[in-house]
Amino acid sequence: MNGAESLVKTMLASGVDTVFANPGTSEMHFVAALDEHPEMHCVLCLFEGGTSSGADCYFRMKRDVGGTLLHLAPGFGNAYSNLHNARKAGSGVVNIVGDHAAHHLAYESPLKGDIQGVSQSVSHWYRWSPDAASVAGDGAVAIRAARSLNGQIATLALPADTAWNTAIEPATADAPPSLHRPRDADIEAAAQRLKEPGAALMIGGAALFGELRELAGKIAAKTGARLMIDTLIPRASRGAGQAVAAHLPYPVGPKIAMLKDTSSVTLIGTHRPVTFFAYPGKQSLPEPAGIPIQDLCLPEMDIGWTLQALADATGGEKAEPRRYALDLPDIPNGPLTLENAGAAMAALLPEGAIVCNESITSGAAFTPPLTTARPHEMLGGTGGAIGWSLPGAVGAAVACPDRKVFVLTGDGSAMYTLQSLWTMAREGLDVTVIVFANRGYQILREELVNVGVQSYGQNARAMFDVENPELDFVALAKGHGVPGVRAETMEEWVAALRTGIKSDGPSLIELVCV
Amino acid sequence: MNGAESLVKTMLASGVDTVFANPGTSEMHFVAALDEHPEMHCVLCLFEGGTSSGADCYFRMKRDVGGTLLHLAPGFGNAYSNLHNARKAGSGVVNIVGDHAAHHLAYESPLKGDIQGVSQSVSHWYRWSPDAASVAGDGAVAIRAARSLNGQIATLALPADTAWNTAIEPATADAPPSLHRPRDADIEAAAQRLKEPGAALMIGGAALFGELRELAGKIAAKTGARLMIDTLIPRASRGAGQAVAAHLPYPVGPKIAMLKDTSSVTLIGTHRPVTFFAYPGKQSLPEPAGIPIQDLCLPEMDIGWTLQALADATGGEKAEPRRYALDLPDIPNGPLTLENAGAAMAALLPEGAIVCNESITSGAAFTPPLTTARPHEMLGGTGGAIGWSLPGAVGAAVACPDRKVFVLTGDGSAMYTLQSLWTMAREGLDVTVIVFANRGYQILREELVNVGVQSYGQNARAMFDVENPELDFVALAKGHGVPGVRAETMEEWVAALRTGIKSDGPSLIELVCV
Repeated sequence: MNGAESLVKTMLASGVDTVFANPGTSEMHFVAALDEHPEMHCVLCLFEGGTSSGADCYFRMKRDVGGTLLHLAPGFGNAYSNLHNARKAGSGVVNIVGDHAAHHLAYESPLKGDIQGVSQSVSHWYRWSPDAASVAGDGAVAIRAARSLNGQIATLALPADTAWNTAIEPATADAPPSLHRPRDADIEAAAQRLKEPGAALMIGGAALFGELRELAGKIAAKTGARLMIDTLIPRASRGAGQAVAAHLPYPVGPKIAMLKDTSSVTLIGTHRPVTFFAYPGKQSLPEPAGIPIQDLCLPEMDIGWTLQALADATGGEKAEPRRYALDLPDIPNGPLTLENAGAAMAALLPEGAIVCNESITSGAAFTPPLTTARPHEMLGGTGGAIGWSLPGAVGAAVACPDRKVFVLTGDGSAMYTLQSLWTMAREGLDVTVIVFANRGYQILREELVNVGVQSYGQNARAMFDVENPELDFVALAKGHGVPGVRAETMEEWVAALRTGIKSDGPSLIELVCV
Repeated sequence: MNGAESLVKTMLASGVDTVFANPGTSEMHFVAALDEHPEMHCVLCLFEGGTSSGADCYFRMKRDVGGTLLHLAPGFGNAYSNLHNARKAGSGVVNIVGDHAAHHLAYESPLKGDIQGVSQSVSHWYRWSPDAASVAGDGAVAIRAARSLNGQIATLALPADTAWNTAIEPATADAPPSLHRPRDADIEAAAQRLKEPGAALMIGGAALFGELRELAGKIAAKTGARLMIDTLIPRASRGAGQAVAAHLPYPVGPKIAMLKDTSSVTLIGTHRPVTFFAYPGKQSLPEPAGIPIQDLCLPEMDIGWTLQALADATGGEKAEPRRYALDLPDIPNGPLTLENAGAAMAALLPEGAIVCNESITSGAAFTPPLTTARPHEMLGGTGGAIGWSLPGAVGAAVACPDRKVFVLTGDGSAMYTLQSLWTMAREGLDVTVIVFANRGYQILREELVNVGVQSYGQNARAMFDVENPELDFVALAKGHGVPGVRAETMEEWVAALRTGIKSDGPSLIELVCV
């Protein structure tokens, strides 16, 4: 057994059976080892940005780590941006990065680079395996690191000779260390504060969905606190039956307005809210100046225990949360506006759907009716780096093959990692991609005004507008082996959406709203 | 004048008038400043990997630096892989990376990341501007750094508040420091060694093209040394009239064979040759063991002075180089093999063309006839990271609007940065993209055997084959606004090539060889 085989066996023995991969020559023995283990699901991404977002959203849905397989420092660089997003999402990811054989690093070979530097810039844990005998143990520790503190980025550099030399035996990852919990006194203080007028309970991480979201809703109902969610969400339960929560919007003004009457913020599983960017003369912190902000439970701490303890301390366990009622709109007639299109989506969205939402500007008008649609889950951008939603949908669909996955994306974001369409086709994934074709970086058009710039001249247009020529997403989809259609009327949009929902495989809709 | 304006004026005053950009909100004031200066050419790339390869190949042709405009750490991450290639090419690039305003960095905002860490992992020079008054001076130093040592990667992080606050006045970049030169004794020793039987003169960098290539050819002719070029070339003169040089191939066996009878290697502007990867049981160094390798002139030193000094010392100035004669093949009939297709390309290639060659496996059969075609220049992969040639062609075409640019790329490489097609259309660039559609990562199929693996099972196929579904490059081109055509016969290929040559704008040919 060589080092590569020992690592693959270690991954499988440790419950890691899915790898989002774009390997190169230095990973050949690893590929050969994967060949011996068809129970390892290897998902080929035609660009490494697909591997990292795939593994990110796989974790968000599966609640366990997947791997990436990358090729030296440049391969890691290509994965970097979506690893940034994964890190901000709190996702656990194990990156296996092939390196040159140790003896080859003495020379200026073309691909020699600073794997350690680029990895450590975004990873929580990094190790370079020194020899074949170490690879299995290092792999087990990497997996444990990725599962620690609710999810971390762990990167293991695998020099080619450690993969091909003789190893000892596979290892199995130990369970991650137990999570840190708040002190009883802090729970008690929070329980008291939440009963005060204007108190907000702001939740994140695992508190945003499923049973913990329910528990947070009970605590809010019992104490009278306002349940709140920050702007960016790794994964949130949405739709009918969910506990009502106020979702902080992206723009500074509405964000400040929503927090206007807040007297305190108790944080569980999330950081204090902050504006996305700084703007001249505007504050970075959106809450009223000087109000208490309690970091009760950092994102790396025991969110479930904290909510249960808070429910116990407040007597919230038996309370009934305020819930969204099912309120399906009629499918509107009339022009294809974002509002009308969103209402149709809300009317048709199947229960249990996963919506990867990377549509900050178009989404603001499109997604509100989804709040009272059939129960579904939404994955959001977390690190502000665009180009995560198409490969993220690949990861979510691989994790949940029985659920319908949707992508809502702007055209600018879609063009970052469009190769993911091919992976959807290759894997036969049930993903419907909806591209809002507003022919530009709409967010930048709006932000130019936000930072106090009034002019919009030749160079700004050159950099914000994605037109001349217009992108043809139907042709782009076809090129990747995915059926696509353009919708320019409500009839076309509704028909395309129904077709996408009925299909078991991928499809794309280019949505051209008026 | 704010900091952003002072920086734009500094760039223009210092002769940097082209920026390959994908800005975000933190760069808004920089965009506004660019708006005031239409003489700055802003080339929008729909993914940051396009900006870095664009600036790389712009430098290779223009022999001066261009800029990139990037958005925080994730934007830099997306540019990383092609900055690695630019670094290995010895290209000078100035990266302007927007960061959050300094006061905003106190908080866990989504886009907060490790700009310094990721930048320093691939940049020669890095600075974070502390205030608006510093921006112009820092920009001037960055430009100087990018021009130093024949070309370096310089990265200036520009916090948003330094862009919008009041600055003092623009600056102008000083000339870069003079280059280090070899000692006279080393020149003399090299002049003697080159006359010995089996001596090789291996050139790189600026010695690969134009007058210096001619000078190197004279020295070789006078001394009897063999003129050699390493496998990867940033930019090389090719075709009829060029001094004959032996070009080291990629595979280990042929590389070793080519160097078999070499008694010494004198290096000017290049590092000692090394195999691309290490392979089990194979040597990393291709030359005969123990022969002298003289680093006469490192890539960062004064290559022109060194060649002139060596010409003086050898009396080579008046020698006549061995040259490639013009030998245009007849356009073959028969099946569309790589060999036949390459012969047709050699017959039709116009003088002065620039060929961005990212076709390692297909190119080995396709490009040999180009050696005796009309004079042209070839840009090659330098860092082994794929996905550089399409955006590289953008940079070359922007630098040389009067020259015909070709891209030779595999399908796997093309899919990394295909968005560059749109930029070609937007800018109306005269680029003909030729995609070798072999439906997979052919190099990996071959390397699996090279590393001693015989099996080729389900997971290896899943990761090496890009089929099921097949990519349709004609549709992909159309989607980006570029006319495309598939060639499956010699007639179709020749017709498509003639059309591409006749056209002034971009086009794509999907070449499906038997």
